[in-house]
Amino acid sequence: MQFHHNGYVSGDPTIQRPAGVGVDRRDELPDEMDVLVVGTGPAGMITAAQLSQFSGVSTRIIDRRDGRLEIGQADGIQARSVETFQAFGFADRIIAEAYRITEMAFWKPDPTNPSHIVRTARAADDETGVSEFPHLLVNQARVLDYFAEVMAHSPTRMQPDYGWDFLDLEVTEQGEYPVRVTLQRTAGPDEGTTRVVRAKYVVGGDGARSKVRAAIGCSLDGDQANHAWGVMDVLANTDFPDIRTKCAIQSTSGSILLIPREGGHLFRMYVDLGEVEAGHEKEVRATSISQIIANANAILNPFRLDVKDVAWHSVYEVGHRLTSRFDDVLPEDAGTRNPRVFIAGDACHTHSAKAGQGMNVSMQDGFNLGWKLGHVLEGRSPAALLRTYSAERQVIAKNLIDFDREWSSLMAAKPEDLADPTELEDFYVRTAEFPAGFMTEYAPSMVVAEAHHQALAAGYPIGKRFKSARVRRVCDGNDLHLGHLAAADGRWRIYAFAPAGGNADPRLAAFSEWMLTSAGSPLADTPDGADANSWFDVKVIYQQLHTEVVIGEVPEVFRPRVGIFGLIDLENAFGIDPGNDIFDARAIDRDGVVIVVRPDQYVAAVVPLAATHELESFFAPLRSPQGAAATSR
Amino acid sequence: MQFHHNGYVSGDPTIQRPAGVGVDRRDELPDEMDVLVVGTGPAGMITAAQLSQFSGVSTRIIDRRDGRLEIGQADGIQARSVETFQAFGFADRIIAEAYRITEMAFWKPDPTNPSHIVRTARAADDETGVSEFPHLLVNQARVLDYFAEVMAHSPTRMQPDYGWDFLDLEVTEQGEYPVRVTLQRTAGPDEGTTRVVRAKYVVGGDGARSKVRAAIGCSLDGDQANHAWGVMDVLANTDFPDIRTKCAIQSTSGSILLIPREGGHLFRMYVDLGEVEAGHEKEVRATSISQIIANANAILNPFRLDVKDVAWHSVYEVGHRLTSRFDDVLPEDAGTRNPRVFIAGDACHTHSAKAGQGMNVSMQDGFNLGWKLGHVLEGRSPAALLRTYSAERQVIAKNLIDFDREWSSLMAAKPEDLADPTELEDFYVRTAEFPAGFMTEYAPSMVVAEAHHQALAAGYPIGKRFKSARVRRVCDGNDLHLGHLAAADGRWRIYAFAPAGGNADPRLAAFSEWMLTSAGSPLADTPDGADANSWFDVKVIYQQLHTEVVIGEVPEVFRPRVGIFGLIDLENAFGIDPGNDIFDARAIDRDGVVIVVRPDQYVAAVVPLAATHELESFFAPLRSPQGAAATSR
Ligand SMILES: Cc1cc2nc3c(=O)[nH]c(=O)nc-3n(C[C@H](O)[C@H](O)[C@H](O)COP(=O)(O)OP(=O)(O)OC[C@H]3O[C@@H](n4cnc5c(N)ncnc54)[C@H](O)[C@@H]3O)c2cc1C
Ligand SMILES: Cc1cc2nc3c(=O)[nH]c(=O)nc-3n(C[C@H](O)[C@H](O)[C@H](O)COP(=O)(O)OP(=O)(O)OC[C@H]3O[C@@H](n4cnc5c(N)ncnc54)[C@H](O)[C@@H]3O)c2cc1C
Repeated sequence: MQFHHNGYVSGDPTIQRPAGVGVDRRDELPDEMDVLVVGTGPAGMITAAQLSQFSGVSTRIIDRRDGRLEIGQADGIQARSVETFQAFGFADRIIAEAYRITEMAFWKPDPTNPSHIVRTARAADDETGVSEFPHLLVNQARVLDYFAEVMAHSPTRMQPDYGWDFLDLEVTEQGEYPVRVTLQRTAGPDEGTTRVVRAKYVVGGDGARSKVRAAIGCSLDGDQANHAWGVMDVLANTDFPDIRTKCAIQSTSGSILLIPREGGHLFRMYVDLGEVEAGHEKEVRATSISQIIANANAILNPFRLDVKDVAWHSVYEVGHRLTSRFDDVLPEDAGTRNPRVFIAGDACHTHSAKAGQGMNVSMQDGFNLGWKLGHVLEGRSPAALLRTYSAERQVIAKNLIDFDREWSSLMAAKPEDLADPTELEDFYVRTAEFPAGFMTEYAPSMVVAEAHHQALAAGYPIGKRFKSARVRRVCDGNDLHLGHLAAADGRWRIYAFAPAGGNADPRLAAFSEWMLTSAGSPLADTPDGADANSWFDVKVIYQQLHTEVVIGEVPEVFRPRVGIFGLIDLENAFGIDPGNDIFDARAIDRDGVVIVVRPDQYVAAVVPLAATHELESFFAPLRSPQGAAATSR
Repeated sequence: MQFHHNGYVSGDPTIQRPAGVGVDRRDELPDEMDVLVVGTGPAGMITAAQLSQFSGVSTRIIDRRDGRLEIGQADGIQARSVETFQAFGFADRIIAEAYRITEMAFWKPDPTNPSHIVRTARAADDETGVSEFPHLLVNQARVLDYFAEVMAHSPTRMQPDYGWDFLDLEVTEQGEYPVRVTLQRTAGPDEGTTRVVRAKYVVGGDGARSKVRAAIGCSLDGDQANHAWGVMDVLANTDFPDIRTKCAIQSTSGSILLIPREGGHLFRMYVDLGEVEAGHEKEVRATSISQIIANANAILNPFRLDVKDVAWHSVYEVGHRLTSRFDDVLPEDAGTRNPRVFIAGDACHTHSAKAGQGMNVSMQDGFNLGWKLGHVLEGRSPAALLRTYSAERQVIAKNLIDFDREWSSLMAAKPEDLADPTELEDFYVRTAEFPAGFMTEYAPSMVVAEAHHQALAAGYPIGKRFKSARVRRVCDGNDLHLGHLAAADGRWRIYAFAPAGGNADPRLAAFSEWMLTSAGSPLADTPDGADANSWFDVKVIYQQLHTEVVIGEVPEVFRPRVGIFGLIDLENAFGIDPGNDIFDARAIDRDGVVIVVRPDQYVAAVVPLAATHELESFFAPLRSPQGAAATSR
């Protein structure tokens, strides 16, 4: 964490100084804004939290609810989400309060007495060590609280505007704020009154019944029937031995997905209520909590569940459905028009809760979109950048729905219907990278280069997220995770992996020189007066131990001047961790290489150190035609 | 973290529900209170933060300042303090914001050109891995902020009362609130007015010039002369290569202790100004910041320091001084009278800043005292318990002053005066356990048993702090640090290390039975209606893997009922970490053993599993004669 560079910060350094639109932010919803986010669910909140880091961008986030979510909804947090929380600064805190999944147990009918269940297997949750981050369970409400805190502590001092129902929108393509949005007050003395506001962009994170989606003429297509579960968050005593372990329980009376929860006592059960044909929703929705508990007891036989308190329950009913596009650009306009309206999260994709994906994929939608909006609105990049959002995320949603369909049908299958009795456990272990959130691999586009030089850094597949590794910082010998320094601050990252000769090799100095002086350098547009590293975070990793690198010889691009005093930032040069050399761990060419990483942590390009022209070509389309001029607001 | 057991907690679970005196706590300072803490420095704040966990105890903490400390004073945080912060719930956050010391560099005059300094050595900060916690540097103000948050989020909703100057006190020995305290308002409209309040106990954490100390007739004795340093917290550019590394710099122009600080830019320099004879303080105190900077530049030659901003500076002047007692019991009354007034921190001991001890030892004073006051005031233990505070902490202070005297004179020595050129580095490495805070070893007393059975658990020396080790929780397979579950909640810990046979060995069940049913059991006094584990935290560690222990067979004392629903707490049984068997790591007898740990994390007793009579004898003097009756408030 870096601070004090503009003078001493006496209080909590995670509370950033107000800047830009945050200096005199009004509490009331204004008539005009850069971005209007509809919905304070995971998709909307992460989008807003990311945008809150752009001090030049005015964003408002509304919800029809009159305050924060209090309970219920999703609770599964995959490792990729925790990695994302780390970038937003709250991973440690949410880990401390959440339940941590370390293994999963599988229960089936006892072959010798099928009316009783028995444990047939246990599987480690992350057998292959896919991430240094854990897999958690915690209420969705708490995730939203943390994002709200990120916004509140951001330079823009953003806060959700509760009590506004989105009714409709129209893209006028006129004026500075071309999207005309109609809202209705759902709370307060003026409840029921409508109001029109205007925005440059609108993001619909308004859930499965999204009105933003409807307004742009999209629909969720897929299964005809919904699958229903009775879901309950309860406090209970029981003799079921795995009550604090995640379990898939299959019995002759139906199946349960058991989810232990934060705090050591609460747990969730999803009790399968089967497929719901259209027209029969009413009966299923009428399932009472006592029926759900009775079903659970029948399934758990011979164990007993003595429920003491029901914190929340619901009949959660959802199908496998997907929209064909995530923005308002009609297929016939693709390539000619830039989007003005986006949808994210459940507004675009719905699927079962069984693989614990809903909140996670929704957040990655928003993380993908947020920085792109910020860059376009601050004039760092042209509006065409926004086309990549729908293109990238629609594919991911499709993969998700395919995966979830397979997992759900395996979980719903009767034991006797499975080809192999261990099919379920095997699938769980084999596919671990998917539900952990690390299978995402974006295709080449204006933000993902072609993989011509992938061989120079086999451990950083282009299009996949930059996997952290340990390094030692030169200036202070601190043993750090390189990737954990990449905060969700909207900056591109450029990691120069130095050639074997380190500072003695002229290629490193040449790279620095080009970066600092060439008109083709991505740094060339950084506005005058801004910190040298405010748009790009440029770091160097040497093949030597940190003690073998002389800080005074580190080329200048890695020692940018920051803050009102022009202090030299010494924290961008690293040596290897002798116990785990990052060059070996990530198969990096010892002649050096440059890795470009997007603000949402995906590897965008791998280029040889000397191929600055390739760096130039990669960034050229991302540079705003107006250049730095456009950004001086 | 455990919560939800009294029903669903929707918000931040680290904010405890108000209880006891916190339910209707008044903002204004009342006329009567159980404990009055004077001074919001590290000693006072930790005492109050610990007391804030006792919902039956009314505590107020005052300071003559009109608000929080903003800048300056101490910044060194030893591993033992971070371990303590972990117990108070804020270690992760302070680690994230602090500077982390991983190594120390030593600079000396260049033998070939003595007017220039050269680096002669680097030493790892914690060569021997004395702790899993880091050594940090962060401003004292932030430590105080975190303790203030702990209090504010505690059941008692405590907040410091700023703007009150302690003038004097008198122990009347009369009535329920025998200490009569005179205060003066230092802020607000009533500034200057005096007021008398009454307390059962008073804690003087009012620093080196303590008036509480004076009021109980104590004085600081020791060195005649003070040692002075120019201290500055600055932002600067420099070509000195180790500016982000802790350094001891000795030059022909004097010496510097360089302390890099939080945030990546700020650093502190202590520039030696030498001994100050009585009568010459004035000249030294007049040392200007420009003189300090000039001195620093002379010492750093050939490197240059270009100071851009001075955040804080001071001439810090202090001698090695110590009081002979830490409470108001005169030597002639020792053993017959119980104390009413205590002093802690700099009020009792002052010494150089060079070993970075002041804030740390002061906090351990308060951690030692806080729970004892809580236990006496809640009627868990007799007032004689309070005698152990002065007895235990005075010895520690004496050791500290001896250590610091040696370290200071080594640092002040001219290189040519040292017997061996590496004497300084060698001392630093050799004595690492001391400044890390782990050399404390309390002597036998009513809270530390004799070491008759030490051989049964050689890795838990009686009187030293309980060193954590990894275990796996039976109910959920979570890989945890056993010691990190010991929150600063005022509870005693009883760890039963199971015999090799585990639950099949009748000794474990017999221990449980005795604990639950014997009148001699320490649990016998737990008030009716309180959670079974509210006074004692009782855990069991098996020699098996967690998967080999059947949770339903874990004896009952390890599965207490908690909360309004009488939920069974399953989180107290552990198996070994297969990679690091705690029985081997701590040399624990495989026949089983019971380890008793104090609320301040010191090992109090080691007894064989079957020796329940020894457990009974150990706790007998600690049990209040009134028993549980006294506590029903
Ligand atoms: C009742 C319910 C129960 C669920 N249970 C589970 C579960 O058990 N397990 C699981 O994994 N997932 C569950 N989910 C799904 C999971 O919560 C979602 O996958 C996840 O929250 C997706 O995030 P999102 O931001 O896209 O949408 P949501 O979290 O649904 O957020 C949408 C937000 O938009 C607001 N909104 C909607 N329409 C408007 C409007 N017109 N104007 C203004 N605001 C609007 C809503 O109030 C809401 O705050 C449940 C969802 C719901 C609604
Ligand atoms: C100006 C200064 C500079 C220091 N610089 C360093 C340094 O550079 N390095 C280092 O390691 N240590 C330094 N120290 C020492 C270090 O801060 C202490 O060792 C540490 O704070 C001890 O904690 P404490 O709680 O015992 O006392 P303190 O932190 O001194 O706290 C005492 C508190 O009591 C209050 N108080 C005093 N008298 C009264 C009264 N009559 N009524 C009400 N309140 C009162 C004070 O306002 C203060 O808040 C410095 C101390 C001071 C005062």
